[in-house]
Amino acid sequence: MGRWEPGAGGRLREAALALYLERGFEETMVADIAERAGVTARTFFRYFADKREVLFDRAAEMAEKSLAALEAAPASAATLEVVAAALYAVADLIGPERELARQRHAVIMANAELRERELIKFEHMSAALADALRRRGVGDAEAGLAAETGAAVYRVAFQRWVDAADDDVDLRDTLRESFARLRTLTAAR
Amino acid sequence: MGRWEPGAGGRLREAALALYLERGFEETMVADIAERAGVTARTFFRYFADKREVLFDRAAEMAEKSLAALEAAPASAATLEVVAAALYAVADLIGPERELARQRHAVIMANAELRERELIKFEHMSAALADALRRRGVGDAEAGLAAETGAAVYRVAFQRWVDAADDDVDLRDTLRESFARLRTLTAAR
Repeated sequence: MGRWEPGAGGRLREAALALYLERGFEETMVADIAERAGVTARTFFRYFADKREVLFDRAAEMAEKSLAALEAAPASAATLEVVAAALYAVADLIGPERELARQRHAVIMANAELRERELIKFEHMSAALADALRRRGVGDAEAGLAAETGAAVYRVAFQRWVDAADDDVDLRDTLRESFARLRTLTAAR
Repeated sequence: MGRWEPGAGGRLREAALALYLERGFEETMVADIAERAGVTARTFFRYFADKREVLFDRAAEMAEKSLAALEAAPASAATLEVVAAALYAVADLIGPERELARQRHAVIMANAELRERELIKFEHMSAALADALRRRGVGDAEAGLAAETGAAVYRVAFQRWVDAADDDVDLRDTLRESFARLRTLTAAR
């Protein structure tokens, strides 16, 4: 067996999520995950630092892709369009794997410590987007508000997406709908 | 000395915040707070369940006042106006004590566990506002988005208020400005 077993990362992720849902996150041991995936615990640690990392290892990639999309937005784009571009990049990353995203979300919602970590992740992402807007020359107050508002829109869209009964619902579409709804909300007097 | 010593609650709060800032939250003991306030530890526990409670004991009152304001908003009011009414009620509660709010905020930002608790508090408040909007007949998706957006606007306004160099800045005004900025943001294409 080579250092990287083909497909072991994906199998470990699926096994971990299934076990977290069946037994609870706290009660699941790395050895259980490895056994379910048919690999050794040693192999687990080649892919993930610990069992929490299975749930959060994509945060860096999400941050990177969304910042790249933000920076690639045309200079003429309105601030909220720039934020939307960053969030569409996140949607494109996690959108294709709705079932994994649903399972991950259910695991996180069932555990206070994980919920907190997820909230902090959103905070960091919103702060990073705001900083990137400021580097584009967006005013301080506008940048903070646009990033926080974008994060709010994303959370609502994500929740609708994971809750949707229809498997064909696209995260990009729910995100687009939420941005449209925000425009309606703020236009109403 | 009576069971409730006049002014002891306020003195304990001020002493606690000062010590949390000087020594750190973790390093401060209830006995230190009581000593600084010139009361016994027993008196401390008549006002606060523990040293964390000094920072979070107003959450219930904030939730209550904001929900009452939301429910009192006219049926004809636009959804975001209803959310704004709820948030102005929060601003009226904490606005008069900017120095305490600043200190509290600094203490919370310096401690990961407290930051997490503060984030969770915002989550709960946003969920409660969304539920209250639904009870007013606002659609599910619109209610969630309006509450999350309101929470985002509030956080940005609060941050600007605590960061303001000018002591005369009013939280209600920064909140009103943030709502106006949101309208500008979402109107731009």
